[in-house]
Amino acid sequence: MKKIRVGIVGGTGYTGVELIRLLSQHPAVDLKCVTSRSERGQRIDQWFPNLHGTCDLSFTDVDLGELSRCDMVFFATPHAVAMHAIPALLDQGVRVIDLSADFRLRDPVQWQQWYGEAHACPEILSEAVYGLPEINRAAIKQAQLVANPGCYPTAIQLGFLPILQQPWADLNYLIADAKSGVSGAGRVAKMPYAFCEATENFQAYAVSGHRHWPEISQGLNTAAGKKVQLTFVPHLVPMVRGILATLYVPLLEDIAPAALQKLYEEYYAEENFTQVLPWGSHPQTRTVRGGNVCQIALHRPAQSNQLIIVSVIDNLVKGASGQAVQNMNIMLGLSETMGLDTLSCFP
Amino acid sequence: MKKIRVGIVGGTGYTGVELIRLLSQHPAVDLKCVTSRSERGQRIDQWFPNLHGTCDLSFTDVDLGELSRCDMVFFATPHAVAMHAIPALLDQGVRVIDLSADFRLRDPVQWQQWYGEAHACPEILSEAVYGLPEINRAAIKQAQLVANPGCYPTAIQLGFLPILQQPWADLNYLIADAKSGVSGAGRVAKMPYAFCEATENFQAYAVSGHRHWPEISQGLNTAAGKKVQLTFVPHLVPMVRGILATLYVPLLEDIAPAALQKLYEEYYAEENFTQVLPWGSHPQTRTVRGGNVCQIALHRPAQSNQLIIVSVIDNLVKGASGQAVQNMNIMLGLSETMGLDTLSCFP
Amino acid sequence: MKKIRVGIVGGTGYTGVELIRLLSQHPAVDLKCVTSRSERGQRIDQWFPNLHGTCDLSFTDVDLGELSRCDMVFFATPHAVAMHAIPALLDQGVRVIDLSADFRLRDPVQWQQWYGEAHACPEILSEAVYGLPEINRAAIKQAQLVANPGCYPTAIQLGFLPILQQPWADLNYLIADAKSGVSGAGRVAKMPYAFCEATENFQAYAVSGHRHWPEISQGLNTAAGKKVQLTFVPHLVPMVRGILATLYVPLLEDIAPAALQKLYEEYYAEENFTQVLPWGSHPQTRTVRGGNVCQIALHRPAQSNQLIIVSVIDNLVKGASGQAVQNMNIMLGLSETMGLDTLSCFP
Amino acid sequence: MKKIRVGIVGGTGYTGVELIRLLSQHPAVDLKCVTSRSERGQRIDQWFPNLHGTCDLSFTDVDLGELSRCDMVFFATPHAVAMHAIPALLDQGVRVIDLSADFRLRDPVQWQQWYGEAHACPEILSEAVYGLPEINRAAIKQAQLVANPGCYPTAIQLGFLPILQQPWADLNYLIADAKSGVSGAGRVAKMPYAFCEATENFQAYAVSGHRHWPEISQGLNTAAGKKVQLTFVPHLVPMVRGILATLYVPLLEDIAPAALQKLYEEYYAEENFTQVLPWGSHPQTRTVRGGNVCQIALHRPAQSNQLIIVSVIDNLVKGASGQAVQNMNIMLGLSETMGLDTLSCFP
Repeated sequence: MKKIRVGIVGGTGYTGVELIRLLSQHPAVDLKCVTSRSERGQRIDQWFPNLHGTCDLSFTDVDLGELSRCDMVFFATPHAVAMHAIPALLDQGVRVIDLSADFRLRDPVQWQQWYGEAHACPEILSEAVYGLPEINRAAIKQAQLVANPGCYPTAIQLGFLPILQQPWADLNYLIADAKSGVSGAGRVAKMPYAFCEATENFQAYAVSGHRHWPEISQGLNTAAGKKVQLTFVPHLVPMVRGILATLYVPLLEDIAPAALQKLYEEYYAEENFTQVLPWGSHPQTRTVRGGNVCQIALHRPAQSNQLIIVSVIDNLVKGASGQAVQNMNIMLGLSETMGLDTLSCFP
Repeated sequence: MKKIRVGIVGGTGYTGVELIRLLSQHPAVDLKCVTSRSERGQRIDQWFPNLHGTCDLSFTDVDLGELSRCDMVFFATPHAVAMHAIPALLDQGVRVIDLSADFRLRDPVQWQQWYGEAHACPEILSEAVYGLPEINRAAIKQAQLVANPGCYPTAIQLGFLPILQQPWADLNYLIADAKSGVSGAGRVAKMPYAFCEATENFQAYAVSGHRHWPEISQGLNTAAGKKVQLTFVPHLVPMVRGILATLYVPLLEDIAPAALQKLYEEYYAEENFTQVLPWGSHPQTRTVRGGNVCQIALHRPAQSNQLIIVSVIDNLVKGASGQAVQNMNIMLGLSETMGLDTLSCFP
Repeated sequence: MKKIRVGIVGGTGYTGVELIRLLSQHPAVDLKCVTSRSERGQRIDQWFPNLHGTCDLSFTDVDLGELSRCDMVFFATPHAVAMHAIPALLDQGVRVIDLSADFRLRDPVQWQQWYGEAHACPEILSEAVYGLPEINRAAIKQAQLVANPGCYPTAIQLGFLPILQQPWADLNYLIADAKSGVSGAGRVAKMPYAFCEATENFQAYAVSGHRHWPEISQGLNTAAGKKVQLTFVPHLVPMVRGILATLYVPLLEDIAPAALQKLYEEYYAEENFTQVLPWGSHPQTRTVRGGNVCQIALHRPAQSNQLIIVSVIDNLVKGASGQAVQNMNIMLGLSETMGLDTLSCFP
Repeated sequence: MKKIRVGIVGGTGYTGVELIRLLSQHPAVDLKCVTSRSERGQRIDQWFPNLHGTCDLSFTDVDLGELSRCDMVFFATPHAVAMHAIPALLDQGVRVIDLSADFRLRDPVQWQQWYGEAHACPEILSEAVYGLPEINRAAIKQAQLVANPGCYPTAIQLGFLPILQQPWADLNYLIADAKSGVSGAGRVAKMPYAFCEATENFQAYAVSGHRHWPEISQGLNTAAGKKVQLTFVPHLVPMVRGILATLYVPLLEDIAPAALQKLYEEYYAEENFTQVLPWGSHPQTRTVRGGNVCQIALHRPAQSNQLIIVSVIDNLVKGASGQAVQNMNIMLGLSETMGLDTLSCFP
């Protein structure tokens, strides 16, 4: 098999190293270059010692010529970087998966409102395919540019999707109370994420408005075919990896547990990476740590008029780099699970 | 000042040691005995080495004679223990603060439904005063028997209380998404609370129904003067101490942030231990670690029709032993803050 | 390729699940049965949810008939279990790798002294090959019974081995100050390993004598060809996986860093899994987490007359199950790295 | 009682907040000012929310006039800051306790060698009293300038001191294998101390030479009356607070445990804050967390020719700010335990 030539732009962060980990072991991939302006010239396996003996590349400066010789380029950059480089690569026929936020929102006005600057290439926004395979598989297959979903949006949309067309679900009071490990903040040296500040602590953050809200709402509105009312509160958990979202949907009718469970199981029956656990299960983030998996369980307390959906992912895998590789597999017509089947460690 | 003679029944757990820590440093207290059936005879400061040099008692067997010579007895036992011993102590004129669940519910039928056995002394339930000083201070002062609130019920009720009489608060969709450190499970050697199982993990538990639900609902119904609909989901956080409750109240009218903030500030204006932080703050559990404090902050995202209340406590202090000492101070006519004013460590 | 039929006795602990994880992904292995007396009948992937979708076996009762139809059987049992079952399997021609301590010591008197009971089959002790491939590869290849080394003994022996024949190394004052994550204690529900007791804490344990001391001393004595004096102190680190051993060797002569470094690099030049890092490096346990790797670095402070060797492993992989699979590969003439090449996650 | 006027220079770090915590509750202290160039004007209890309701000061710029009106000034600055300001304060008659490294070494040449710049006031070095009360109490009482010991030096010297004059102790092979929580690195936003990098990890650092080595060696040499050979290796533990030092002393004679234990108990018989635990105990860092205590235990394995001493402290209390307050109490003729007797939380 001729291997795919792959490049990564911005490889020094946690999604970057996770991409390198997955792509280094992917049988169809030949990883050609990983760029980093700040660390160019440094060997990657010195920067990320878990790659010792596997990856003999060094970080390179961003070189559009070299990137344009790749078949597929991933962007693992902060927001507002990829949008400046991607149009030129698309012109060269390169296919691109952007793990940043630059192409997730379809409305450039909304993008500017949440990210504080004008979008650099609003004319391309409509070409970008939102890379959530569970709803967009066919479009992803054809896409030249995939906007890889954010971590919270992945866990929350997968949890809500099956109920959005149901008449008994009251979409005016949707609540997503989400909790993330610290790696969700990226590989940054800031005081709130210092060990002594983040360990033995729990807090909410960005309660007044988080940049993932418009992305989630856009997805829910689209799937519902109408405007939903979503309240989204993120929290910081003293652990490295994992997101758990507790989702609340008021029920307008009395729906039996078995019917709810069946709805979810059928909705995800063909999915490789979204698993519906038995009714009343308690998904744990550690179970999906390192894996490209979303696990979902349903509850309906006797005392409550709400359906409760619990959804867990590894924010760096199904919430970022693993989903990006899944999208690559789809785009290339490979088996969707290729390179994504290693088992997590326990404990 | 003549010191109060105090006894503790069941001193080997985390609420027990926290009581001993607080009472050992309390200027009005003479701690006379701490019982433990399993550890009788063992020196307490060997069991809890943080007490080295301060507490020279040993655990004793339960001896109602000795307990009846105390002015005040605390029960820090598992549920369904205190209810068998307390009536005899009350007959002797001893005042009792029960940190267990035995006297928190007023309805013995409901108690039996949630705790799986008949209540041993239903005739006393109506005498017990629910020990949440913020709403029951006068009754606590006169009480012979105080039922000390649970940890989740403390954080959640203090968060909801000010809105329960407001016409613009929709009490049909109250949600309490609560997160607790592992010490909330008590000092037990069970696999789910083992280090290797609980660290680097996050999960919900008891989603289908938790014993604190009837206690919280009883309190909210009483304060609201009508039945509210409460959904309560607890989660386990990989940290030792702390509860954070994220509370959601749908708004039936558009209430301005300043009015909401004023409502809370005035409601708790006279309280020593419940603090309303500035609008939009993000309370952290570590700030209240070791302190008898509840901190509350309010949010109202532009994208949401919900008032969001974040409430934090240390589950072992304001959620258990600190609140018990606060109740003791009230019962004895002492300064409410006596023995409760040491500063927490940071970090 | 015809697959090897493999059985595991005692699969419910941490070394058990790690064996299942590695063997499930091993291309030459067909895992036939995993026994557990206490959990027989339970599906393994419910007990260890990280195996979901990969392992469809259930735990079985110990059945020597079924085990004797395996080509290779691993024992992941507590000490003093395997020695009762292994002789019968050996008689059936089955090859056995014992991860417990039962066949590590050659002297049954010493075994009894440290494990508190008489050895059940002292006559077999001399047949068992000590499974440290770096020194025993040829013997392992031929062995029917391999005694898989302990976790501390692996990290410590690999660190000391190159100097044991050197005239400038004073073997009368060897010190191994070792630190282990909590998973080293196994999957047990005991108070000292509870989250609230083990987190935010550090301590030494078993300073007066640990069962790994005779195993390490036996290995060092053999390699040195004389009796060495070893002081070994283990410590408990509030993390799940990893051992770091800090080793001290007084120098009788002034040996240059380059010569020391060359000695180690040449000693391990042909090894797949023991890596000598550049002089003065600081190995980290997280780098080897999940991998079958020992990383070693050397130091010689200007202020000290000691050579300092730092050695790290994952106690459950190179310190247990990974090394067991490495031994299996050697016994079967397979590539030594087969099934052991997946990358660790970072972070 | 007229209260002492106290100032703190450099209050934004972990030793700063710990000083503020202890001094705020100290009955003889009136905390007048806390300086911070970077945070001047900010309320201290917003910077350190654990001080909410207790400390109503704001950080001020460094103002020697205001500091010179204090009776006692603490420096909690990085090294090479205090030495520029202290001479002027001493001239004004102010008494000073310097928690930084500036006055710990008596030899300015050695200071320059380890800290990379010339000492600013070498003529004052001989006036500074090394603030380890267990050996220097009388001199501290008279001192105008106290150099507060480092954290490792406190734990290690207190562990070694009793044996330094013993003929049976071989002082040529002293080893201090020390382990510290992450707060020892100070309140800094650097990647190695980020939560995701430091948690679930263990490593040694500065093995080739750490700045505390000359401080410890100076102390040991002085107490021994001759030059000792010390090897010192620090390690980073994934916890916030605590140092544990494992100390090794080769024995030249066979000394009985009882004699060793008696030596230590007598040596520290009069000390308030250095406690000798029963022979063979395993001190834990959590026991001393938040307390101004050093706990020491002795071991002598049958298999070893070494005396092993285990010493634990809270690096921010007995290893820094608590010891500074202890020194202040001594300098002022107060009870040495004043303000230092609050109990630690467990767990």
